[in-house]
Amino acid sequence: MRTRAAVALAPGKPLTVMEVNLADPKEGEVLVEIKATGICHTDEFTLSGADPEGLFPAILGHEGAGVVIAVGPGVKSLKVGDHVIPLYTPECRECPSCLSQKTNLCTAIRSTQGQGLLPDGTTRFSMLDGTPIHHYMGCSTFANHTVVPEIALAKVRDDAPFDKICYIGCGVTTGIGAVLNTAKVEIGAKAVVFGLGGIGLNVIQGLKMAGADMIIGVDLNNDKKEWGERFGMTHFVNPTEIEGSIVQHIVNLTKTPFDQIGGADYSFDCTGNVKVMRDALECTHRGWGVSVVIGVAPAGAEIQTRPFQLVTGRVWKGTAFGGARGRTDVPKIVDWYMDGKIEIDPMITHILSLDDINKGFDLMHEGKSIRSVVVY
Amino acid sequence: MRTRAAVALAPGKPLTVMEVNLADPKEGEVLVEIKATGICHTDEFTLSGADPEGLFPAILGHEGAGVVIAVGPGVKSLKVGDHVIPLYTPECRECPSCLSQKTNLCTAIRSTQGQGLLPDGTTRFSMLDGTPIHHYMGCSTFANHTVVPEIALAKVRDDAPFDKICYIGCGVTTGIGAVLNTAKVEIGAKAVVFGLGGIGLNVIQGLKMAGADMIIGVDLNNDKKEWGERFGMTHFVNPTEIEGSIVQHIVNLTKTPFDQIGGADYSFDCTGNVKVMRDALECTHRGWGVSVVIGVAPAGAEIQTRPFQLVTGRVWKGTAFGGARGRTDVPKIVDWYMDGKIEIDPMITHILSLDDINKGFDLMHEGKSIRSVVVY
Repeated sequence: MRTRAAVALAPGKPLTVMEVNLADPKEGEVLVEIKATGICHTDEFTLSGADPEGLFPAILGHEGAGVVIAVGPGVKSLKVGDHVIPLYTPECRECPSCLSQKTNLCTAIRSTQGQGLLPDGTTRFSMLDGTPIHHYMGCSTFANHTVVPEIALAKVRDDAPFDKICYIGCGVTTGIGAVLNTAKVEIGAKAVVFGLGGIGLNVIQGLKMAGADMIIGVDLNNDKKEWGERFGMTHFVNPTEIEGSIVQHIVNLTKTPFDQIGGADYSFDCTGNVKVMRDALECTHRGWGVSVVIGVAPAGAEIQTRPFQLVTGRVWKGTAFGGARGRTDVPKIVDWYMDGKIEIDPMITHILSLDDINKGFDLMHEGKSIRSVVVY
Repeated sequence: MRTRAAVALAPGKPLTVMEVNLADPKEGEVLVEIKATGICHTDEFTLSGADPEGLFPAILGHEGAGVVIAVGPGVKSLKVGDHVIPLYTPECRECPSCLSQKTNLCTAIRSTQGQGLLPDGTTRFSMLDGTPIHHYMGCSTFANHTVVPEIALAKVRDDAPFDKICYIGCGVTTGIGAVLNTAKVEIGAKAVVFGLGGIGLNVIQGLKMAGADMIIGVDLNNDKKEWGERFGMTHFVNPTEIEGSIVQHIVNLTKTPFDQIGGADYSFDCTGNVKVMRDALECTHRGWGVSVVIGVAPAGAEIQTRPFQLVTGRVWKGTAFGGARGRTDVPKIVDWYMDGKIEIDPMITHILSLDDINKGFDLMHEGKSIRSVVVY
């Protein structure tokens, strides 16, 4: 079949909207009509050329929602008409990682996915002249139709709006999951969130769900204060407007008459800046502070600290897709949205057509959007 | 009173055995006759001058065992004749850290202890000419008698031999505790221990207690193979004798027919070398590997890695005194020794008199001892 897609022809150039060929789903694969897709920083990271593993030409996009149009041979858990969210972290429930019950990082199709291919080592997309086009993160939601392995699709309820729940395909789940699955924040905790973009705001609403007492947001942009407060932030800090270091500032802010040591119980880096990651670790509480890296750092960048920070009880960890097992957890998060336990609508600041998809990247660069969503 | 002590008069010089004055215990303090003390790398670190917080003159030593000779006013939990192990990490059971139930790093007397003083801000030791001598880590077990706060003494059973259980005051507890309290290793785990000295061997016996399936020891010295095996090591690796990186070697060694990702479930750095700490993290399993820093790094040294290591599920943490709450856990470890659940005797390779204490440092430098113990 043919479908319309925004194709990344080369790094550093805008996407090109064009007709492309899409082959039928093979064994274990599913043809999905994408109804809506968010534009995430990770797409931008790859499109810019900064991602050393970026492949071109490719159809980017990994934050979508849609409907099953056809299923390939052997597909059992999905049928035509099912509403689905594609998963860049699949959940096969059979690999050593899935069976470990310790991680969401399913490895069933990791190597082919990293090569921009489906599990059989080929691509379903091609130019009209036959040139193959790479898949991206196993999703390629910047196409109106895409083929995705069955194990990389979460079946969700039929009454949830595509232009909102597409965001659960990455940003919402990453932010909320970092709090609930990775950090396992408990009621009454004090937490700090560095970077109040599309991930950071979801960390904030995750912290609110978890019952944190103190939710400190840190951002260089004062406009983010109002955004943070909308989702449950209790304190805002602009590091350029304080005296002394942000670490000492957070430590002081979290002191109590009883606890004069100070420090956050949990911190989250949503910036991708390795210096901020260090601050995030070091502002946590001696003895038990846990710092979670969420942001994607530039190629080659490294985090650094004195080992004394760890020896005195701080824990440095990270999260991918919020530690969520996609097929199991994503449908629950859709329910939470439909039940009003979490908010998504205010974060979708811009709705675009596929033809205008490059405007979504412009808005991101200008810091004007929390999330732009393309509706097909 | 007067007592004999090995005094560190200046950095980089041998200890000087001499008579010193020791004042009576004050409120909440206890006079202890030290019967035996181990010589630990941390003593050496301070004596060498490498420790930027080192103070001189001081009476070093923090791995002792002895008997209560007198108690100061207000002391309730100890009486004359009790057998005790001094604790460089006290357990007040009242401070925010103790009450958090999340850390063993009691902060009740941290600031004065760091200044080489008892909690009232003064020292009990002085030269015969009246010059004050600093305490060290709140213990100063290189003196035949010492004064220690009540909250920094673990009461232990009377029938345990001082020249063995003194080692529980640091090395044994640090190694075993890192496995049981900090990493919480489970039955069947695969673990790697970097550095098979006085701490590493105790990590190994902790792993054996915890039921680890694979206990890989890494050391540059092939003599350590026999030592490691004595305590439960199942595999030995000398990084200078393999092809390729130690990280890849460990990853390959831990692969199974089912799990072709490979990596250790847990790793422990007992070297203090920040490059080894990085290897220790990176050789753990994608998705759930936990790496514990135990070794003390040189002043200013920093650990470093790509944040991707954390984002893909590895956890970097550290431990001090094996996460043990001294007054609660040390008596249990003494019981384990007396019940034969752990071994100490073979690790005490040298017994010295106080007059020969500098020989203990020589043996350490020459790599000839696991632990030298001074018996008074």
